[in-house]
Amino acid sequence: MTTTFDQSTHGARRRTVISVDAMGGDQGPPAVVSGIAKSAEKNPDIGFIVHGRAAEIAPLVEKAGLTDRCEIRDTAEVVTMDAKPAHVMRNGKNTSMWSAVDAVKNGEAQAVVSCGNTGALMAVSMLRLRKIPGVDRPAIACLWPSRNTGGFNIMLDVGADIRADERDLLQYALMGGSYARNGLGIDRPRIGLLNVGTEEHKGRAEIKSAHDLIAEMAPAAELEFVGFVEGGDIPSNRVDVIVTDGFTGNVALKTGEGTASLIRELLREAFNATLLSKFAALLALGSLKRLTKRIDPRRVNGGVFLGLNGTVVKSHGSADATGVSSAIKLAFRLAESGFTDRLAARVASTGQPSHDDDGMPEKNEQNA
Amino acid sequence: MTTTFDQSTHGARRRTVISVDAMGGDQGPPAVVSGIAKSAEKNPDIGFIVHGRAAEIAPLVEKAGLTDRCEIRDTAEVVTMDAKPAHVMRNGKNTSMWSAVDAVKNGEAQAVVSCGNTGALMAVSMLRLRKIPGVDRPAIACLWPSRNTGGFNIMLDVGADIRADERDLLQYALMGGSYARNGLGIDRPRIGLLNVGTEEHKGRAEIKSAHDLIAEMAPAAELEFVGFVEGGDIPSNRVDVIVTDGFTGNVALKTGEGTASLIRELLREAFNATLLSKFAALLALGSLKRLTKRIDPRRVNGGVFLGLNGTVVKSHGSADATGVSSAIKLAFRLAESGFTDRLAARVASTGQPSHDDDGMPEKNEQNA
Repeated sequence: MTTTFDQSTHGARRRTVISVDAMGGDQGPPAVVSGIAKSAEKNPDIGFIVHGRAAEIAPLVEKAGLTDRCEIRDTAEVVTMDAKPAHVMRNGKNTSMWSAVDAVKNGEAQAVVSCGNTGALMAVSMLRLRKIPGVDRPAIACLWPSRNTGGFNIMLDVGADIRADERDLLQYALMGGSYARNGLGIDRPRIGLLNVGTEEHKGRAEIKSAHDLIAEMAPAAELEFVGFVEGGDIPSNRVDVIVTDGFTGNVALKTGEGTASLIRELLREAFNATLLSKFAALLALGSLKRLTKRIDPRRVNGGVFLGLNGTVVKSHGSADATGVSSAIKLAFRLAESGFTDRLAARVASTGQPSHDDDGMPEKNEQNA
Repeated sequence: MTTTFDQSTHGARRRTVISVDAMGGDQGPPAVVSGIAKSAEKNPDIGFIVHGRAAEIAPLVEKAGLTDRCEIRDTAEVVTMDAKPAHVMRNGKNTSMWSAVDAVKNGEAQAVVSCGNTGALMAVSMLRLRKIPGVDRPAIACLWPSRNTGGFNIMLDVGADIRADERDLLQYALMGGSYARNGLGIDRPRIGLLNVGTEEHKGRAEIKSAHDLIAEMAPAAELEFVGFVEGGDIPSNRVDVIVTDGFTGNVALKTGEGTASLIRELLREAFNATLLSKFAALLALGSLKRLTKRIDPRRVNGGVFLGLNGTVVKSHGSADATGVSSAIKLAFRLAESGFTDRLAARVASTGQPSHDDDGMPEKNEQNA
């Protein structure tokens, strides 16, 4: 079932098929199927293959009136949130996650979405989809609320791998630029390299080398390299893509989320403090809702795995229906743009030799 | 002038003397002297030695009515914000920064405050005050708004050095614990080690080793080690002290500040959006002001240098009078608690051998 035809509206229409792992995530199949329902309602051009325990999923799909939009693939096993990636790579063949990734590998779906265990999803995706030639370390890219025209920056790597050398950082710059072009519609993305100071004498050796490599490659890749940026620039309008290693990126992402969540909580307390402030909150409800929406992490839900032969979107484990629907929307947009092929072409065009050419990870900390 | 006597209120009183570099900082001597005036008014127990160009400072001090509280030390030169630390170490003898640090070295003041160039201030402080026996790498500790009872966590290192091995991380845990006890009044500080996941199989090798070292030393040091924490835990009530290397800590600090500043800006926009929301903002003014104060970075202004024979407080370069006054308050509190001596005793009691025993840095990336 690669495509289905719907002649009800404007003749034969090709549906983009998204493969969804229904079993990952803290809230289980009900949240995932609700998210599918939200997306299905908004966008008639998406078809779904849903992977997991059919006995749990089928009633939910039926109740949501989605039987004509969803094909269900019954799988017996589930990857738990604390499963070790290496274990899943060896023993995960009967899991919903594996089946969901394989639907992309087999060309039945154009992208996969999972709320499951990040490390396991990366391991299974690398094993089944393989890396794009020229890419040594795949990366996870996230969207970040910012002062940009579009309202979002991209940051990568936010946790695929805990380290990166200068050539990995160069590849992240190229892959992130390609994502910004195809996912956010930015013609000439501005790339910044995360460091502790903007002066060129600061920072680690590999970051300094990466600076020179990216500066050299940027013009040919139609990227604008703005040089070093600091943590404070992440939500700014100075850059579209922030490049860093997975350790630093993961800490920054979670620190930003934690800070936003603390402020939201304090804001709620402030408006509940007095009768007068409760009344004020009521008056400002529209404005406050717009603000809350702007910084709602569920709206930017979806880490994209870059550097694989196929589009993989990792949704937050705690995602609710809104979160799952955001991740599906992102997967759909990337599938429609032919993103994976464009990214592969971009990486190939730079002619950077790969560390390893067998398509398998040479250094496999990403699986640890 | 180590102490001055003030018989006006309750007999002979010993003043704690704070040495202030008036020339660092983006706003120059006027902001620094205004900050001194704020502190002097609130706290009659502080005396000041103010370092910088007397021709600029004296009129400000006189106008603020502070001539009996401030001794002025005339210095001809200023450390610029882009000066290289190594250059300042060789040629900085006539700068206000050097003079300010020397007042602590000579026992004339109990702590020093500067808004100047961080790298230069660390280099001059290390050169003049020397490291505490047993400490290899001094660290910069910052306060972070959190859900703690006191409203603040401590994070270190936030930028003294871009790397740290397991023994450095252990020392940061001990020094941060001592700071939490003496600066925040927490009897048994909870220590967390920053990592990308709370599972023990994740993270870099030196972080895993540090985990074991800290777990082993914590009981004797009267610390509660909570193990690994993630970026999202920084503003939480799980920990009082977050331990990390200076690269990661600096990125996290600036990311948190940047996120808070983006949200403040969006909040302002939201309340200015309509007439109704402007009216609402007026009604909620009291509550909003309390919130703004709670997350105001000026209130937590002051990175403390830990591991030196003397208390050094680095204020934000952009600090205004409120920011400078916060930094002075922090310096006063630490000076009063005899913090430096207690910290030295704590580090010595762990009996950890130092990497180097000559009191000078063996690895001097911190000066780069």
